[in-house]
Parts: sequence; structure tokens; C-alpha cells
Amino acid sequence: MQYKRRQATLRGLLASNRLDALLVTRLPNIRYLCGFTGSAAAMLVTERNCCFFTDGRYTEQAKAEVQGTKIIVDRKSPLLLAVEWLKKNPERGGRWSLGVEAEYLTLAACRRMKANLPSHLRLKFAPPLIERARMVKDTEEIQRIRKAVAMGARLFDQTLPTMRPGVKEIEVAAVMEHSAYNAGAEGMSFPTIIASGARSALPHGRASQSALPVSGFVVCDFGVILAGYCSDQTRTVALGRTSSEARHAYEAVKEAQQAAIDAVRPGTSVSEPDEVGRKLLKKQGLARYFTHSTGHGVGLEIHEDPRLAAGQNEIFRPGMVVTIEPGVYLPGKFGVRIEDMVLVTENGCEVLTPTSKELLEI
Amino acid sequence: MQYKRRQATLRGLLASNRLDALLVTRLPNIRYLCGFTGSAAAMLVTERNCCFFTDGRYTEQAKAEVQGTKIIVDRKSPLLLAVEWLKKNPERGGRWSLGVEAEYLTLAACRRMKANLPSHLRLKFAPPLIERARMVKDTEEIQRIRKAVAMGARLFDQTLPTMRPGVKEIEVAAVMEHSAYNAGAEGMSFPTIIASGARSALPHGRASQSALPVSGFVVCDFGVILAGYCSDQTRTVALGRTSSEARHAYEAVKEAQQAAIDAVRPGTSVSEPDEVGRKLLKKQGLARYFTHSTGHGVGLEIHEDPRLAAGQNEIFRPGMVVTIEPGVYLPGKFGVRIEDMVLVTENGCEVLTPTSKELLEI
Repeated sequence: MQYKRRQATLRGLLASNRLDALLVTRLPNIRYLCGFTGSAAAMLVTERNCCFFTDGRYTEQAKAEVQGTKIIVDRKSPLLLAVEWLKKNPERGGRWSLGVEAEYLTLAACRRMKANLPSHLRLKFAPPLIERARMVKDTEEIQRIRKAVAMGARLFDQTLPTMRPGVKEIEVAAVMEHSAYNAGAEGMSFPTIIASGARSALPHGRASQSALPVSGFVVCDFGVILAGYCSDQTRTVALGRTSSEARHAYEAVKEAQQAAIDAVRPGTSVSEPDEVGRKLLKKQGLARYFTHSTGHGVGLEIHEDPRLAAGQNEIFRPGMVVTIEPGVYLPGKFGVRIEDMVLVTENGCEVLTPTSKELLEI
Repeated sequence: MQYKRRQATLRGLLASNRLDALLVTRLPNIRYLCGFTGSAAAMLVTERNCCFFTDGRYTEQAKAEVQGTKIIVDRKSPLLLAVEWLKKNPERGGRWSLGVEAEYLTLAACRRMKANLPSHLRLKFAPPLIERARMVKDTEEIQRIRKAVAMGARLFDQTLPTMRPGVKEIEVAAVMEHSAYNAGAEGMSFPTIIASGARSALPHGRASQSALPVSGFVVCDFGVILAGYCSDQTRTVALGRTSSEARHAYEAVKEAQQAAIDAVRPGTSVSEPDEVGRKLLKKQGLARYFTHSTGHGVGLEIHEDPRLAAGQNEIFRPGMVVTIEPGVYLPGKFGVRIEDMVLVTENGCEVLTPTSKELLEI
């Protein structure tokens, strides 16, 4: 991974954001910047330097993983280590603005930090510089995401035969997760959703002890983490006979999902796929059952920027990887969701998820 | 669950902690106080009132789960809802101290809150009142914990036959997790640790793609969540022939663990089991390989107060549930850990984990 380049890019952004240094404490951001996967760390980025701090439990792991920065290990908390380092290494005189990740730093941690802060340092809420950089994936990241998506799709195919009336949702999820670990996944991106019958109308119906019904929809939403990167996919399969109302909803969601995908191209607003898909569902009288947004970025985390929803200002750029996942949920009856992962290319987009979207009746 | 009583107890603690109200934002604390299991909520506790806030996604769930408090649902963030409620419901005039959970509230959330805060309110870092209450479990909590521990122990017995040379650690973990879900667990308490051969010397050796060796130790550390409550158990099993050095370490840890258990009784310091166990390991020349603390509280979360470590001031009280888990780790060679869950009783303690601690050679 191009850790050095990522660090350099970030250093280059400090001055224009009126920061002399950025204190990074959000773990996925630290992983993005230097490769560290442990659970206790801080990073300090100045125009001239990059420094990584961790505690004694991670001495070996830091040596093995961290790239492109000095590594400082001590018994103290990484946050306090970073502050101390700033005290001892005044890069230049005068007042300093130290940016912090205010959405992820707690009041208590900040108070402990302030008690040790040299007087020339002033804390400042930093803009989400790293989150913005993470939106656009580089070649190696895209490669890893492709592999994670491919594994997720294979797992779905392998798990399909277990979906029979009477089998518990949680058993289906367990078979899928079992296969994922055997295939080398580090974990699941999120608790697997297997929501059947009336439960399919719950947009986040985590697999339960309910048995699959003789007939009805099963919403399967799942993902794996492979080499740090997440996949995310949803398919809705039908057990037994499908009512015409359910079939109509399925076809409407499928059409809306395709239209939303067609709206993904560089230069257009990330709210466009949401608008386009919603409009089609409205024509079918289903828009009021589409109760969530159309998608989100995926990468080191399962939910990243951008959000594909109304009112978002971001513009699609090549290298972004997002989900397209419209759904409709008729309370007490059934739900349908279809979700692919999509890569923004130079000219449009590429659907990464290989699984068919025809209604699968089993 | 006795939610009303818990809320009343907390209300009674406000004045002596110089708080007029407590804003609860930490989710496990909210679950403890009113039963809500969703992911977006806040609670406001004053001497006279208790109020629960969530957003529109959780209208139905809040109605079904939340007990003993008013429920207020709106599109806004629960935190801002709570602040607004305070504005509209001035219980009495004068200045007010509003306690916040500073270890769990971010700078950014606090800033958004402050922008809406009525001028008579002053924010104050609250002491961990709820965490302290959660340390001592009531009858119903102990019942749930017993069931979770029993399920964990059964899973271990069921998984033992899969532990053969050549089988991947991750497969063993997958079998265990699969069985857990089938048995009705809501999830695992933490990513299952199956660490074999030299990897057993990693105190947190999450199950990997490594194959179990022909001979060597396998540290198995696992737990299930059942009805919201966690179990936590470790056993070390031996594959093939065990060297005399490894057997010596096993017996030393077993002896230290029993001595630590014997030190658990009401009125003594929670640091006592650590001291006693460490002393015994020192006699065997193994103390320097015991690199973590002796245990921790368990309940709604896998790691709760008290910490069983040197320098801790807490005193054992009946109803506390803690782990006792000494271990030794010889880098590059092997590791041993034995862990039970233990309930503090009126006269001493009761070991909840039923599994034998004799060295199991398979």
C-alpha cells in the first residue's frame, strides 16, 4: 500500500486548512495512513514529520506493520505520547494549531490531553481530511475490494442450497459465516442479515431464530472483510409461490436499482442515483416504502463517505466505490432489497458484484 | 428486569454527586437503565423524571423494549432532543448542573449540544455512576449470566472433537460459532481465540488460517451473548505429547488460577486474586511470562468494572461477576491460560464455569 504517498498528500493539505499539525486518533484512519491494525494508537502529522505512537502491547506488531513513519512506543497512552512528542520537538516557534478529529475524540481524552498541552498549542476541530482522501480508492485498494466482493458472491452461491422452509435464519447466516472463515475472510463486514417472510420488511432484520417460511421473500444482506477491505451485497430470493404484489415490487426495485447504477458516473452528484431510483419507485406507487438512502462508500469500513442520499454535495470521482441498494418494505407483508457494489470509472461505472439479479425462486 | 428500580437508584445518587440531571449517551448504560437495544438513543435522568429519546427508525422497537420512562421520538439526534426537552421542561429555576459521560461523548457531539444549550445549564463531567451500579448484578442478571456460561461450556465440549492436527484454527472457531448461533446465542462476546502451537503464546491470538500442529497447546478463549449477557471462558488443551516444560507451566497456571479464585470473597480488595496468583507463578519462575491482569467484570459487556489488577481500589461485593484468568506466555514456544467466570457470594464465591481444568490431551 502507498502509505508514504498518503502521508505526503495529507501533509500537503495542512497549511491550506490552517493546521500546523493533525493528531489522528481514529483507528481506520491510522490504518489507512500507515498500515497499523492494532487497537491502541495515535499519529501526529506535521508538514515535515509523521510520527506513530502505540503502547507496549504492540511493539512487535507496530514494527511489522507500520510503514513510512517513526514509531514511538511507551507505557503511556498514545494520545499523551503524541502530546509529549510535540513538547520535545518544537518544529518552529510561535503559536501552533493542532487539529483533532472531533467526531472521534472524547471529552475526557481531550481533558487529559489539555492537562499536558504546551502553552503554544491551540486545539482546533480539523475537517475530515483523511475521510475525504479515503473516498477515492487506489489501484491496490480496488484490487482488494474486488477480491472481497468476489468472495462474498461465492459465499452467497454456496449458501443458497441451505435456504429451505423450516431452516432457521440464523442457521443460514451461520453456514455463510462458517464458509467465509474457511475461505480466509478476516470476519464479516457486519452481522449477517437473513430476514424472511414478514421479517423481510425490516430493513435491518439481523438473522433470527425464525424459521424460513414455505413461501415468501428472504432478504440476504452480507459482506466479508478480506485483507482489511469490506464487501457488501444484498439479494432477495423467493421461497414457494410469489404473489403478484410481491413480484411487482421485486421488478420495480430491480428496475430502480439498474437506473440508479446508470446514474453513477464521474462529475455527477452522489445524490443523483437516489433521485433517479426514487422517481421510478414513485411511478410504481412504492416510493413511500423506500425508507432509507440509496447507498454509501465502502472500503476499510463498511460505511464510508460518500452517502448516496438527497441533499449530499459530493461529486462522483473515478476510484470511488459505493453500494447501490434501493429497497421497499411493506410492513407486516414483505420486503425487497437488491444491492451491488459499484466502482466509479473514467467514463461511467463498473458493477463489481457478479451475482444475477433475476428473481431466484427456490 | 428491574428497570424502574435501577432508574430510581440512579435518581437518588444525583444530589450527592452535585448533579441536577444526568445525560446518558453510552448505549450499554441505556440498555441497563431501560432495556433499549437499538443503536441511537439518549436518556435524561433528573431527580423527578426519566426520559428516553430516539429517532424515527426505532419508534416500534422503543415501544416494545423501553420500560419505566417517557419515550420521545423525533427526526433529530437523540442528544439534541434531550437538550430541547430540558429547555421546555425547566423543573425549577436557577442554575443547573447537567452531568455528561465524558469518556463516551465526543467533542463534536458536545459542541452541537452546546450550541442548543439553555443558558442556565452548565455541563459537568459525571462520575461513572451507572458503571458502578452495573458491577453488582441482580438475581435476574445472574440467572442470564448462568445460562450464557452454561451454553459457552457446552459449545466447548461440542467443539473439542474438531480439534485435530491439520485443521485450521479458524475452522475450529467457525464450528464453535456456528453451534452457538444454532443454540440461540445472539452473537459471540468477542472474536473467538483459537491459538495453537507457538501462536498460543499470543495472549490475544485470534483464530487464524494456521493449522493445528501435531503436538502443542491450543488456547481456546470464547464466549457467547445470550439474552444480552456475555460469557467468557478459556481452556488450554494439548495435542500430541506434552513436554515437561509445558506441563509444568500448565500445572503452575492451574494452581495460580485456583489460588486466585480462593481469594475472591466479599470485603477483600479486587487486586487480591492478582497478587495471590502472581506470587505462586513467581515461585515457579513464571511470573515474568504473566503479562496481563487477572480478570475483569462481565455482564452486558464483555469487559466491565472491576478490573482485577494491582493498584485497583474496588472491594468485592456479593453479586459481582468476574473472570479469573491467569496465563503465561513463553514467546516462540507456547502459552497457557485458564479462565472461569466467578460469582461473588455472601461468604466467598461460586465458580460458574463447569468445565474441568485437568490438562486435556487429545
